[in-house]
Amino acid sequence: MNNPIKIAVDAMGGENSPLKIIKGIEIHSSNTSNVFYNIFGNKKIVEPLIKKTNLNINNYKIIHSDKLIDDNDSPLAAAKKGKDTSMWLSIESLKNQQSDAIVSAGNTGALFVIAKLNLNMINKIDKPALSALWPNKDGMNIVLDLGANIECNEKNLVDFSLMGAALHKSLFENEDSKVALLNIGSEEIKGNNVIKNTYQILSDKKNPLFEFNGYIEGNQIMDGKVNVIVTDGFTGNVALKTAEGTANFITNELKKALNSSFLGKISALLNIKNLKNFKNKLDPRLYNGAILLGLDKPVIKSHGSTDEIGFANSLKVCEKIINGKLIEKIKKNID
Amino acid sequence: MNNPIKIAVDAMGGENSPLKIIKGIEIHSSNTSNVFYNIFGNKKIVEPLIKKTNLNINNYKIIHSDKLIDDNDSPLAAAKKGKDTSMWLSIESLKNQQSDAIVSAGNTGALFVIAKLNLNMINKIDKPALSALWPNKDGMNIVLDLGANIECNEKNLVDFSLMGAALHKSLFENEDSKVALLNIGSEEIKGNNVIKNTYQILSDKKNPLFEFNGYIEGNQIMDGKVNVIVTDGFTGNVALKTAEGTANFITNELKKALNSSFLGKISALLNIKNLKNFKNKLDPRLYNGAILLGLDKPVIKSHGSTDEIGFANSLKVCEKIINGKLIEKIKKNID
Repeated sequence: MNNPIKIAVDAMGGENSPLKIIKGIEIHSSNTSNVFYNIFGNKKIVEPLIKKTNLNINNYKIIHSDKLIDDNDSPLAAAKKGKDTSMWLSIESLKNQQSDAIVSAGNTGALFVIAKLNLNMINKIDKPALSALWPNKDGMNIVLDLGANIECNEKNLVDFSLMGAALHKSLFENEDSKVALLNIGSEEIKGNNVIKNTYQILSDKKNPLFEFNGYIEGNQIMDGKVNVIVTDGFTGNVALKTAEGTANFITNELKKALNSSFLGKISALLNIKNLKNFKNKLDPRLYNGAILLGLDKPVIKSHGSTDEIGFANSLKVCEKIINGKLIEKIKKNID
Repeated sequence: MNNPIKIAVDAMGGENSPLKIIKGIEIHSSNTSNVFYNIFGNKKIVEPLIKKTNLNINNYKIIHSDKLIDDNDSPLAAAKKGKDTSMWLSIESLKNQQSDAIVSAGNTGALFVIAKLNLNMINKIDKPALSALWPNKDGMNIVLDLGANIECNEKNLVDFSLMGAALHKSLFENEDSKVALLNIGSEEIKGNNVIKNTYQILSDKKNPLFEFNGYIEGNQIMDGKVNVIVTDGFTGNVALKTAEGTANFITNELKKALNSSFLGKISALLNIKNLKNFKNKLDPRLYNGAILLGLDKPVIKSHGSTDEIGFANSLKVCEKIINGKLIEKIKKNID
């Protein structure tokens, strides 16, 4: 390969790992070129799994570690286990310039703490934010913060706007980034002081990276008029999980409705292609890969419970972020 | 009628009023007995509409007012218009013991301000909360606050728990009320201090009205394990609207999927009964009727954009709250 991009993959965390991780790498590598995988995990388990794939031996390296961070470890316990675990070593490979981005399906709290211990914050950014993809009518939103910071001040929300827009531009280079602040349409005074002050700052000072579109309410998240949605980590986490719960509720009710009679079953069969299209559009694996923004290297978190297709998508996010020069975009546009 | 319950109906607010209001009263009255409607609005418009219904002349009274509060009036402007409007008069009829509950599909901010000007807070309750019905797998949740208070302290959230449980018991007398606090599953410290302190107070001091079930996350709102969900007005408003937006997004995608081919159209026709059942379960008109809790009389807000069926449901909410002795339940169980 000609100067490939290098992705550090923690092979050991999450459900059904490392099997789904290796299969995910196989899927991703068959749809791309010029990507090299640094695979961190127990060689005795990982190597036989790779042998069963058609992964080119020139496209990966296994870095052995027989210690791993358990999905139930507290962040503190995980940090103490530390330096010889697959997660720590994979993050360390960013610091040592051996990898360009890291992805793990393991323990989220541990990933954040170990990333913060090993990597620097981008200059002038005070707090990292967790961001993820969220579908809208016309494409994809970036939403942040999704839970890294319970309380945020104006400076944090302004930083999140910039970082979210940089991420959006890295992933969807041909689209304009349109930022909005998540607010409420209460009949009382609209929003708290932090939100109002952030609105003022973003209105007063244009940033070349994005257009500021003011406030949106929760029911407008998916209408496609903006694509970067900024909020504090408490609100963002509740919103994301409420949307997930609502989607599950509706699709379960729909399944019940379609199976509740013989006629229903037959017509559901007839409808199978259309319903598949519908299901595909809502498939959460498509949106897999949350990004911890604010550190000076890209750290990507895959859902622990996703499968190989979902994990392959988080590898695609890594690839796009590296090629889209996310970190440079943030640094260049920060005030 | 034998000592009927009396509902004050502001006939003039919301889309397509007073037509949908009068039709809604007709629907409600045909499904109940012993309810008397005090209808506030322009007699010249309202009376001919009522004449077209089969409403029994002994079951209603029209109280004339030719002033009305516009849906676009600010709460302050509305309060200044004041005393001769249909909204003001309908709320005043609670103060004067002429009605037992008031419902309006008009301007929400105006309704709250005029209600607060005319009615007393229940003793020891500091802040009113807006609560509404939200479907879950097995039935209905009460969720509050949905936007009346952007910031809440421990005392407020404890009060909301009690008031929400009292409302739940009034509407669903045979069910146990199970309260939970909406929180996040962030890997950082779980929740802010207000939520943690509220958790402690509710755990330490049992209330006979409800069982306290700790924290839930947004994706658990609809799983039916609890039925009274407490949060601050900012988070609650974002959660509710995000759920609405998600539901709209999915049902729109579904419609597109079912119409995207000829075969799809045929099988959608075959499926029509099942899909109708599905749609009925999600029909927002079923959940119409938000309740402003904390005042010493029941104040109910219908969605402005609902139709007569939705408005009839908000009348049913009024009826259940009066018969369920909501205000007494709150007073009796307050500390």
